[in-house]
Amino acid sequence: MPARPTGHEVLAAVLQVREDALQVLLWQRGKEPDRGRWALPGGTLGDTEDVEESVRRQLAEKVDVREVTHVEQLGVFSAPERVPGIRLVATAFLGLVPSDADPAVPADTAWFPVADLPPTAFDHAEIVHDARDRLRAKLSYTNLGFALAPREFTISALRELYVAALGHPVSATNLQRVLTRRHVLAATGETAPPGPAGGRPAAVFRFTERALRVTDASAVLRPPGSRDSAGDGAVRPVP
Amino acid sequence: MPARPTGHEVLAAVLQVREDALQVLLWQRGKEPDRGRWALPGGTLGDTEDVEESVRRQLAEKVDVREVTHVEQLGVFSAPERVPGIRLVATAFLGLVPSDADPAVPADTAWFPVADLPPTAFDHAEIVHDARDRLRAKLSYTNLGFALAPREFTISALRELYVAALGHPVSATNLQRVLTRRHVLAATGETAPPGPAGGRPAAVFRFTERALRVTDASAVLRPPGSRDSAGDGAVRPVP
Repeated sequence: MPARPTGHEVLAAVLQVREDALQVLLWQRGKEPDRGRWALPGGTLGDTEDVEESVRRQLAEKVDVREVTHVEQLGVFSAPERVPGIRLVATAFLGLVPSDADPAVPADTAWFPVADLPPTAFDHAEIVHDARDRLRAKLSYTNLGFALAPREFTISALRELYVAALGHPVSATNLQRVLTRRHVLAATGETAPPGPAGGRPAAVFRFTERALRVTDASAVLRPPGSRDSAGDGAVRPVP
Repeated sequence: MPARPTGHEVLAAVLQVREDALQVLLWQRGKEPDRGRWALPGGTLGDTEDVEESVRRQLAEKVDVREVTHVEQLGVFSAPERVPGIRLVATAFLGLVPSDADPAVPADTAWFPVADLPPTAFDHAEIVHDARDRLRAKLSYTNLGFALAPREFTISALRELYVAALGHPVSATNLQRVLTRRHVLAATGETAPPGPAGGRPAAVFRFTERALRVTDASAVLRPPGSRDSAGDGAVRPVP
C-alpha cells in the first residue's frame, strides 16, 4: 500500500494541579486550520532529532522546561484524517509540573482545567483525556506523585493534590498509610506551622525518589534489580 | 525546522514462550539494506489506516493473527539514522501468543529466543528488548499472564511460563498465592492427570479475565470503576 507524504509531529500534554484542579497547558491557534481553537504545545519532528529531543525543544518555546519534572511517551495518534488536508502522525507525551511551580508562559498560552476544556484543535482533547487517564493509573501503582508535588509537603497538602489529580476522594490517613508502606514517602523531621484554623504543627514529608518506579508490583514477580520497571521510556526534559 | 520527507512504519515484537524460553517472531530480509538479517514483522503505514489497523494488517501476512491474544503500543522509535538513507519513524507494538498455539508462519519467518537473537536488522534488537522489558514489568502488576497461557493450565505449567518470561525463578507456591490474592486465577474444578513422574492429580486453573487489568494498584488510589487502568491503548488484533 503506497503512502502519501506523511508528516510527523510531537505534542505534549503538560499537566499541573492548579487551584485544586488538574489543568493542562494549551495555546490558541492564530492560523487556519482550527484558528482560534486551543492546541497542545508541539510541532513538526525535525530532521536531526528523535521524538524525545523534539518534544523538549518544542516545549521550551511555551514553558520553562526546567519546571517539567517528568515526561513520558503517551502514544501515537494516527487517524488518517486527524488533521485536515495532510497526513500527520503525532507522537504524544505526558508532562508533569509540580504544584509549587508557576512557569512563565507566552501571551497565547494558558492553563485550563482538564474537566472543562475550551474548544480544542483536531484530536487534542482526546490526547488530554488519555494523558489524564495515564496519570491517574500510574498514581495508583507507581511513585509518580513526586512529579506533581513540591519538594516538601504536609500530608494534608499532598492529599489535595491526589484528590485533584484522581478526581475522587482520598483520605489523608489512607494516603499516608499506602505511600509509607510502599516506601514512597519519608518524613523530613521538620514541621509546618498550623494553618489559619489552628491545630498542631504538621509533619513535613518528601518523596524518597524523584524518578519513576513501579511501587505496587507483586514482589515475587518483580524483575530483580529493576528500577523503572514501567518500561515506558520516561525521559527527562532537561539533561 | 523544515523536515525532509518522513516515512512511517509499524513493527510488531510478537512474543511467545516456546520450549521453556521467551521467543520472538522474526523474518529474514531478502533485500538490501540489511539483507540476510532478521527483522520484525511490519511495514509502511498505509494512507487509510491508523497504526493499530496497520499492525493488524501487516502481522496477518506473517502469522495467524487470531492466535495473538494481546497487542499494545510499545513506543516510537525515531532516531534520525535508524534506517539508512531515509527518515523512517516506527511505531512499535508488543504482541503476545499463548504457549499452546503454534501458528503457521511463512518460509522466511522463524522464532528465536529473545536471549539469543540472530543478527538483527536496524534497531530491531532494541525493540525486542524493550518488548521483553514491558512484558516483564506488566507481569508483576497486571493480569497479563493470561496472554501467555493456554485457556486452562496447572500451576506447575503456569510457573514454567512465568519463569521463562521473567527470566528469574518463581516458586509455584508464591505464584499461586499472589495470583489468587489478586483475583487473577480461578480453579476450574477439574484436575490434570499426574505427569510421568507420578504424584497426585493437579488442580486446573484459568485466568478470570482475558483483557488487560492492573491488579496491583493501591486500592485507595485506584480510579473508581477502572478496568484497563494501564491506559496504554491495548488493542485486539482481531475484532
